[in-house]
Amino acid sequence: MKPNRRKFVTSILATSPVYLAPTLLFAKHESYTRREMDKKMQKKDSLAGMSRSDLPTPCLLLDLNRFEANIEKMAGHSRSNSIDLRPHAKTHKCVEIAQRQIKAGARGICAATIAEAEVMSRAGIPGILITSEMVGKPKIKRLIAIAKNSPDMMVAVDHPDNVRELQEAAEAARLRLNLMLDLDVGSNRTGTQPGEPALKLAQEIQKAKSLQLKGISAYAGHSSHVVGFEARKASSKEAMGKALETRDLLRKNGFELAILSGGSTGTYNIDSSIEGISELQVGSYVFMDVDYRRIGGQSGDVYEDFAPSLTVLTTVIHRSGNKAVLDGGIKAIATDRKFGPEPRDLTGVTYSFAGDEHGRLLLENPSREVKLGDRLELIIPHCDPNVNLYDRIYGLRGEKVETVWSVMDRAGAPAYF
Amino acid sequence: MKPNRRKFVTSILATSPVYLAPTLLFAKHESYTRREMDKKMQKKDSLAGMSRSDLPTPCLLLDLNRFEANIEKMAGHSRSNSIDLRPHAKTHKCVEIAQRQIKAGARGICAATIAEAEVMSRAGIPGILITSEMVGKPKIKRLIAIAKNSPDMMVAVDHPDNVRELQEAAEAARLRLNLMLDLDVGSNRTGTQPGEPALKLAQEIQKAKSLQLKGISAYAGHSSHVVGFEARKASSKEAMGKALETRDLLRKNGFELAILSGGSTGTYNIDSSIEGISELQVGSYVFMDVDYRRIGGQSGDVYEDFAPSLTVLTTVIHRSGNKAVLDGGIKAIATDRKFGPEPRDLTGVTYSFAGDEHGRLLLENPSREVKLGDRLELIIPHCDPNVNLYDRIYGLRGEKVETVWSVMDRAGAPAYF
Repeated sequence: MKPNRRKFVTSILATSPVYLAPTLLFAKHESYTRREMDKKMQKKDSLAGMSRSDLPTPCLLLDLNRFEANIEKMAGHSRSNSIDLRPHAKTHKCVEIAQRQIKAGARGICAATIAEAEVMSRAGIPGILITSEMVGKPKIKRLIAIAKNSPDMMVAVDHPDNVRELQEAAEAARLRLNLMLDLDVGSNRTGTQPGEPALKLAQEIQKAKSLQLKGISAYAGHSSHVVGFEARKASSKEAMGKALETRDLLRKNGFELAILSGGSTGTYNIDSSIEGISELQVGSYVFMDVDYRRIGGQSGDVYEDFAPSLTVLTTVIHRSGNKAVLDGGIKAIATDRKFGPEPRDLTGVTYSFAGDEHGRLLLENPSREVKLGDRLELIIPHCDPNVNLYDRIYGLRGEKVETVWSVMDRAGAPAYF
Repeated sequence: MKPNRRKFVTSILATSPVYLAPTLLFAKHESYTRREMDKKMQKKDSLAGMSRSDLPTPCLLLDLNRFEANIEKMAGHSRSNSIDLRPHAKTHKCVEIAQRQIKAGARGICAATIAEAEVMSRAGIPGILITSEMVGKPKIKRLIAIAKNSPDMMVAVDHPDNVRELQEAAEAARLRLNLMLDLDVGSNRTGTQPGEPALKLAQEIQKAKSLQLKGISAYAGHSSHVVGFEARKASSKEAMGKALETRDLLRKNGFELAILSGGSTGTYNIDSSIEGISELQVGSYVFMDVDYRRIGGQSGDVYEDFAPSLTVLTTVIHRSGNKAVLDGGIKAIATDRKFGPEPRDLTGVTYSFAGDEHGRLLLENPSREVKLGDRLELIIPHCDPNVNLYDRIYGLRGEKVETVWSVMDRAGAPAYF
């Protein structure tokens, strides 16, 4: 499907004033999007001669060799196990990375927010699955606009009231919306309960003439980070078992569902061996983080199926005694986990957050000297919210800055068009 | 001092390629900055008729009545106690708010990052004090560019090696840099130790012909959040005592320092009664948060000198049993504190983070019904990193959206010019 930009912009213009404002704004003086502006930064002449040492700190570095190997490894796993990939764009919020995932064979991209779906649709990424429920008029207006540009887009649903408002909006727009039944397989977040409640909801969807049920989305967020491979396997098998039973119940009642979407970076090699799971919603594998490294692999205490490719580059801005202070704190490194970041090439030190803009490095038994002005790379604790703290990802090949990619606008912001 | 935009842009153009790229980019097709673009959004016609219910969720709401009362209350305190204000822009990262603080009588603005200082200088905000050390060539190049536009800018320093690199850069640029001696009064972060080490550093600065020492920056971050007014008072008095002793030692050695900068939202009415503190670096008072409310006031368990004006607006996207799931999680609400957000107009419920884009609300004994599609306002746990998660602040007068302000670019990003 070729994206039609003019048609899409027109459909966005038909939405409420809050999305209209930035649209008109950009339309008025220039037709470039912010992303297109950023793309210009990638031109060879403006990056010529730029190296790691020129970069402002704190900033987000992507080791392109590792990143490309991660993309290729997951793509290879998908091919050899005959299971589809629909990687989650919430991890990177970056069109250039989604394009590389699609090019490597992914059948689509997941999005967690309406803004992510807008950006991906606008860039012509196929097979968008919005994994969160889109509830309320402002989001549904934007959803309809996306559906006009990306007719294969799918959206999660878990409540009959939401089915009704989606049906009304789709009917008014004279289009068909593709739905995925969001199943709670143990995460205790969104999703309908497996079995009869799921069947009942499917029947509600069946009655709605402008809606089409495509499959089941059974993301087991509670399984993905279980420490220890065998324990993780047991957790995911139990969760996916509920999804398979529900699929069977729906089949018995006449529902032919093409998609059963499960999986995560932590369970990719577990779920791909479960007959019936048709695709994996893997996200973190492109970057990795301290959180995933600590869950352990099939053999070994560190999960090393994929290499940590994303780091935060910091500068030592204070040095005294056994203390170094870095210019990366709460605003530069995700704080949602119990642990902090880990230096990439330095051992015998411990990082702790020391405010919005500072991190404190205790130099217990440092493997090398740490001087004022030194630059330190930190492996991030949790990749998704960490990327969300930055506007740009600097792609490095060794010391050379090869590319700069734009991270889309922050939470809640309507995307610029 | 009138800012000279053309001169400033030219000086930025003289810096290294990484800052050059976005500059050229914007210069090429349009001379608007991103902030200027966003300002256009504020035009009455594009906001006409916009109300709270039109806004995308999650988004950042500012209760303008409360916000203006906070600004005025702190300004009144400053006037009646004859103490200067230099509010910290790291809290809001927003030019429009800095302008209101200056208009209310603040003598300047603090900045924590080079990018914040760039944005504030570019907007013509006077009296910029960069409270973090600017170490290494990339930052110092940008610092020199700012100094050309804002000759009254000051920057914190705590190490003789940094004094040397600042002297070299200032001399090469044929200008004078104003420095503030960063003193560690107990935060154990940056800063030189009080007493002799501080004097020694001051003497190093004195030898540097292109540097001028303006005063002492003694921010007691460890005192600002001490729970209980009396305990907080004792903590701040001890910290500020070290600053005063150091000032006296420097005076005895011939240093005439005009500024002794202390204070915080938590200690504003403590530090203003300490003879010798010349200004307060208050930040959070404009917004407030759960963190500050819990430290207690001069009378009472809740610190209510300033009203919580900033909230995150969310939508209920899942509803089942005693559970409601909101579309605001780790990427929408700051996670650096041990506690989460608190609903503004709903009691008997408990919020917990449930992933990057979700929050789980346990409805224990809710003071009102919570339905699918309802919109809930949450008082943020910690204001500075929470603002950092958003591109825009929607200013509300009752239900009406009166203004939209832009939050500057994220961590590490060179600002667009």
